[in-house]
Amino acid sequence: MLALAATGANAQTPGREAMAKVIAGQHDQNVKSLQDWIALPTIAAEKRNVSEGAAYMRQLALDAGFQQARIVESGGVPGVFATLDAGAPVTLGVYFMYDVKQFDPKEWTSPPLAGQLYDRPGEGQAIRGRGAVNQKGPETAFLAALRAFKASGRKLPVNLVLVAEGEEEIASPNFPRIVADPQVAAALQKTVGVFIPSASQDESGLGDILLGAKGAVEFQLIVGGETSDKYPRKDVHSSNYARVESPAWRLVKALDTLVADDGHTPTIDGFMDNVAPLTARQKELITQQVKASNEAEVKKGLGIGRWINDEDYQTSSERFLSQPTVNIQGLVSGYTGVGGKTVLPGRAEAKLEFRLVPNMTKDEVVTKLKAHLAKRGFDDVKVVVSGGYGPNQTDENSAFIQAQKRVFERNKVPFTITPRSAGSWPGVVFNGAPLNLPTGQFGIGRGEGAHAPDEWFIVRSSNPRVAGLDEAALFFVDYLYEVAKLGRK
Amino acid sequence: MLALAATGANAQTPGREAMAKVIAGQHDQNVKSLQDWIALPTIAAEKRNVSEGAAYMRQLALDAGFQQARIVESGGVPGVFATLDAGAPVTLGVYFMYDVKQFDPKEWTSPPLAGQLYDRPGEGQAIRGRGAVNQKGPETAFLAALRAFKASGRKLPVNLVLVAEGEEEIASPNFPRIVADPQVAAALQKTVGVFIPSASQDESGLGDILLGAKGAVEFQLIVGGETSDKYPRKDVHSSNYARVESPAWRLVKALDTLVADDGHTPTIDGFMDNVAPLTARQKELITQQVKASNEAEVKKGLGIGRWINDEDYQTSSERFLSQPTVNIQGLVSGYTGVGGKTVLPGRAEAKLEFRLVPNMTKDEVVTKLKAHLAKRGFDDVKVVVSGGYGPNQTDENSAFIQAQKRVFERNKVPFTITPRSAGSWPGVVFNGAPLNLPTGQFGIGRGEGAHAPDEWFIVRSSNPRVAGLDEAALFFVDYLYEVAKLGRK
Repeated sequence: MLALAATGANAQTPGREAMAKVIAGQHDQNVKSLQDWIALPTIAAEKRNVSEGAAYMRQLALDAGFQQARIVESGGVPGVFATLDAGAPVTLGVYFMYDVKQFDPKEWTSPPLAGQLYDRPGEGQAIRGRGAVNQKGPETAFLAALRAFKASGRKLPVNLVLVAEGEEEIASPNFPRIVADPQVAAALQKTVGVFIPSASQDESGLGDILLGAKGAVEFQLIVGGETSDKYPRKDVHSSNYARVESPAWRLVKALDTLVADDGHTPTIDGFMDNVAPLTARQKELITQQVKASNEAEVKKGLGIGRWINDEDYQTSSERFLSQPTVNIQGLVSGYTGVGGKTVLPGRAEAKLEFRLVPNMTKDEVVTKLKAHLAKRGFDDVKVVVSGGYGPNQTDENSAFIQAQKRVFERNKVPFTITPRSAGSWPGVVFNGAPLNLPTGQFGIGRGEGAHAPDEWFIVRSSNPRVAGLDEAALFFVDYLYEVAKLGRK
Repeated sequence: MLALAATGANAQTPGREAMAKVIAGQHDQNVKSLQDWIALPTIAAEKRNVSEGAAYMRQLALDAGFQQARIVESGGVPGVFATLDAGAPVTLGVYFMYDVKQFDPKEWTSPPLAGQLYDRPGEGQAIRGRGAVNQKGPETAFLAALRAFKASGRKLPVNLVLVAEGEEEIASPNFPRIVADPQVAAALQKTVGVFIPSASQDESGLGDILLGAKGAVEFQLIVGGETSDKYPRKDVHSSNYARVESPAWRLVKALDTLVADDGHTPTIDGFMDNVAPLTARQKELITQQVKASNEAEVKKGLGIGRWINDEDYQTSSERFLSQPTVNIQGLVSGYTGVGGKTVLPGRAEAKLEFRLVPNMTKDEVVTKLKAHLAKRGFDDVKVVVSGGYGPNQTDENSAFIQAQKRVFERNKVPFTITPRSAGSWPGVVFNGAPLNLPTGQFGIGRGEGAHAPDEWFIVRSSNPRVAGLDEAALFFVDYLYEVAKLGRK
């Protein structure tokens, strides 16, 4: 178990040992709370548990001590806005996602909504379930910290503004609207920054501070009877392809223009114009991470033998964080079962996503994509943008990030600083205009399997270097006291 | 109901009215037999009812009067070989397919295996079920003719050799092996030609004689962790596409080389080399068909507003029968559900099919495809050929086709002659070397929906110009007497 009584942290957090005991005493109910939450999956793509999930999120906030919490309609899955006024000079913003990724129970060892507790040899007791690490587990650790304050009758050292959304997994199409709500925007303006609770430790106990994240824009290209009367409205006998145009081939031709023959370099007109190269400091941070990481294990985890172009780990890691992408998430057209079937499909769809780096914006790339296709005559290829946002980036030397570093240092948890996540979260909504707030992902603890089967999160660690739920919660307690020192904004 | 007592036919078929009565008396049991057969679908792609279907086919042959019938192992779904020796000078070959296309019950009005009887206004009583018209209905009409001979204690005017397969719907991958069986080949060599029973009438009663059919080769292109260690073995988080190659993009790039930017012209090296252009007579036959057909109805049936290049009906119909194709039957990769999902797929598959015209062959195009991909470095794109065969073509002036024409004429059933079907059947196995037999699809009756939901076949026609099951059976009786006149081969 992580050393709870780290001297440095103790000295900064009043009554730290008492708080640790309260958290330990609430362990079972915190785990139960996480299991209950996992049992109610909000899945935006499937419109599953939309109002139920929002109501549940609101209640979680109230139960943790937020004095007010309200549901904010967004046009899609609603958000939740909550405030906790501790009468403190400093206010911290917290971002929660309460939705989870789709899942297929057939691929899971135990039912994905059961939140089964099980032993991970050498790691301790873990909970297995959809959302365990992405993001309900780390968020529960933060709520556990707040519950400990409440149970102790202790005032928080900072005020909190919580903004939660239920569409993170479909790229937050309506989140800007939630944040633009006058009350929400006014409350956020008073914060020193916004963070999302995360579980950043690897199995060696190495934690991480993230300075930013790529943006993501999800969209679909659709061709078929619904987009032009050149194509059949349903799948028809394939002999007809000798006289009738094929939506599948048209889609292939449109796709082909978006990426170079190498299979990875974007070729959308102007797509790379605003890409900021990595700074020397960013490369240095990547070098530190490369040294701290086991390349063979990472490759094994991905099931690959080689990086793009057979690049070495440093080059490939720089590529990972610096390159914008035009990814195909999925292709679906016509017959998709075993073997073949003699049909001419009536519809073809490619599911794609951009990942964006500074200084690209969502509006910019969507406009460029549409212009690119229009210029090449693909007016029968429908572009459906289902969600997205730009990248976020926070200065390593900002007071907000420095506070995070101090919490790691005082707890003697080793950590890397990652210049940017290759994944995405909608931090740009806080980070960009008009709020221009520092943002970050922050926390200890450990889990894996985001978006994959058998997602898990450690609740009781048997590894002294890795945090379980309780240690992660106490780390957040330390963080709140550290943020309090930042002074009124 | 079709005029059963057409004078011309009567004069050529001894005891024709008696036979018509026997057929009518067996109507209900013939329909029941068709329903029972529909209830047992052999689906090669799903390996469904493989041995059951073969055993059932064998029994159908024995019950119809074949003296011997045996199952012929093929390496895949077995074939059935049966002979009926009537001591006649002339022997006719018959080809049956006993398998059917896949189906999705959700898309059907009544269960696809129920063989439900229902009224089609203005057409009569139809049976709805998978295989109703493709090909169990027309084949049942032929068996009904044989059952009438048997019930009447009458000798057939010709001997029969039946070869049936259960893999027609996956492009007959093992059928050449069945036909190459020494007993089967020896029996077929004695035939004057081989035909497959079909229901060629449209709603106006217009029938058709087919002089040939395109060949078809079904194959899949597969890219992913199973073909190269550049790709992940499973779907992984899409952020990794910044450093890991994408099977989906690789597939798009490989596909793109197979067809021109127009979306339909094949660009595989040498693919068009052996394409025989239409003859003047073939174009003339197409013109006759264009005149007899309702373009607007055909377009409506396909759900399209335009032919390729906005061509007129004649041009488009010539294209239909003369052009070889590289069709995409289906695309499947990564996430295929609603909206998007942030994955980098571990696998991408395109299901394709060639349609071949004279003088292309299966081996030729498969070799050219592989050479084409290899030349462009696509050694990580796996080609899986799941079945296929070349085109077949029979001379309009051959005695075999002339006999078919006479049956139409004597029954006063109007008909067109189609130079070639744009669809496919493995007639080349008989038509090509070493057998070099005339082949054809032949029969009256009517049905629609092959490969589609709600496939149907008329069992009792209320339209005097269209045959029901009984009239189609009697037409086959006439055909057998007409074939008998061809004389010993």
